[in-house]
Amino acid sequence: MTFILKPEPLTTEAFAPFGDVVEAGATTAIMINGGNTERYDSLARVRVENSDDHAVINIFRAQPRMTQYGQRATDKRTMQVEMMERHPFGSQSFQPLSGEPYLVLVADALEDLKPENLHLFLARADQGINYHKNTWHHPVLGLNKVCDFLVVDRKGSGNNCEEFYFDQDQRIEIQL
Amino acid sequence: MTFILKPEPLTTEAFAPFGDVVEAGATTAIMINGGNTERYDSLARVRVENSDDHAVINIFRAQPRMTQYGQRATDKRTMQVEMMERHPFGSQSFQPLSGEPYLVLVADALEDLKPENLHLFLARADQGINYHKNTWHHPVLGLNKVCDFLVVDRKGSGNNCEEFYFDQDQRIEIQL
Repeated sequence: MTFILKPEPLTTEAFAPFGDVVEAGATTAIMINGGNTERYDSLARVRVENSDDHAVINIFRAQPRMTQYGQRATDKRTMQVEMMERHPFGSQSFQPLSGEPYLVLVADALEDLKPENLHLFLARADQGINYHKNTWHHPVLGLNKVCDFLVVDRKGSGNNCEEFYFDQDQRIEIQL
Repeated sequence: MTFILKPEPLTTEAFAPFGDVVEAGATTAIMINGGNTERYDSLARVRVENSDDHAVINIFRAQPRMTQYGQRATDKRTMQVEMMERHPFGSQSFQPLSGEPYLVLVADALEDLKPENLHLFLARADQGINYHKNTWHHPVLGLNKVCDFLVVDRKGSGNNCEEFYFDQDQRIEIQL
């Protein structure tokens, strides 16, 4: 049996259990710089768990997943979900830099994940997201072409990446 | 007398006294996510000065400066520099989200600034910057059109913005 995932639009409200949506307009802007600039303030808070942790800014360059995972050469719009990951020591944000939409796949805060616990969102090119600490999520899901993302996350000691692999008998497929 | 500023290209080396350049390729990528993603790791470190500070992610929407400051309706490519600012309690990064180049104006680490202490850079659309704590810089200088920037900076108590105003007898002009 195949479990089919279809995306819903990414909104602040729908994504609230998992993290923040980083987009202009999500809050009322503060005017700064003598009226030159609108500041959409504190759209996300960067979390680091331990006192000697710090936050870093990175760029992730992601291959388009739909192409890579497609089952047939002519089928570009499906991919198989095999695993999820989470970061126990801090938040992790992704902001698209390549003007392309992308997928965001998260799961409920459980230890043993079932396909029914997954939630798939389609993010617009002007929407970033910030996973709260410990939110299960799939590695970055670029679409259409190679895409860059600005990533803000935690640096420090200890293993900050836990992985969950679904039972291989269970086929989970994203379909667009 | 008018002091004329012309931009130089933004490079990691030239900008090192003032902060970091955040661009893919500035470091060797680490392959992650099963080979799907190149991680350009720790391009900048987010600094917060006090133990109860934290970092936040914001979006700044900036009006194009050259239009606003142009002295004649037909002259879009000059602007007057009147002031600089700095943040004593943390770093502040800007990543362009609108696919446009922008200007970065910084100054030497002095208390009394002269026009000769200014350094003007032209950043490409794929280059972000991270001002080190206490680096003098001009408020965001968008070009050509309204531009969004992802900004990572410090949140906490106390006055985190110091300003320096140049003598009004001294005219300082950016020319492109």
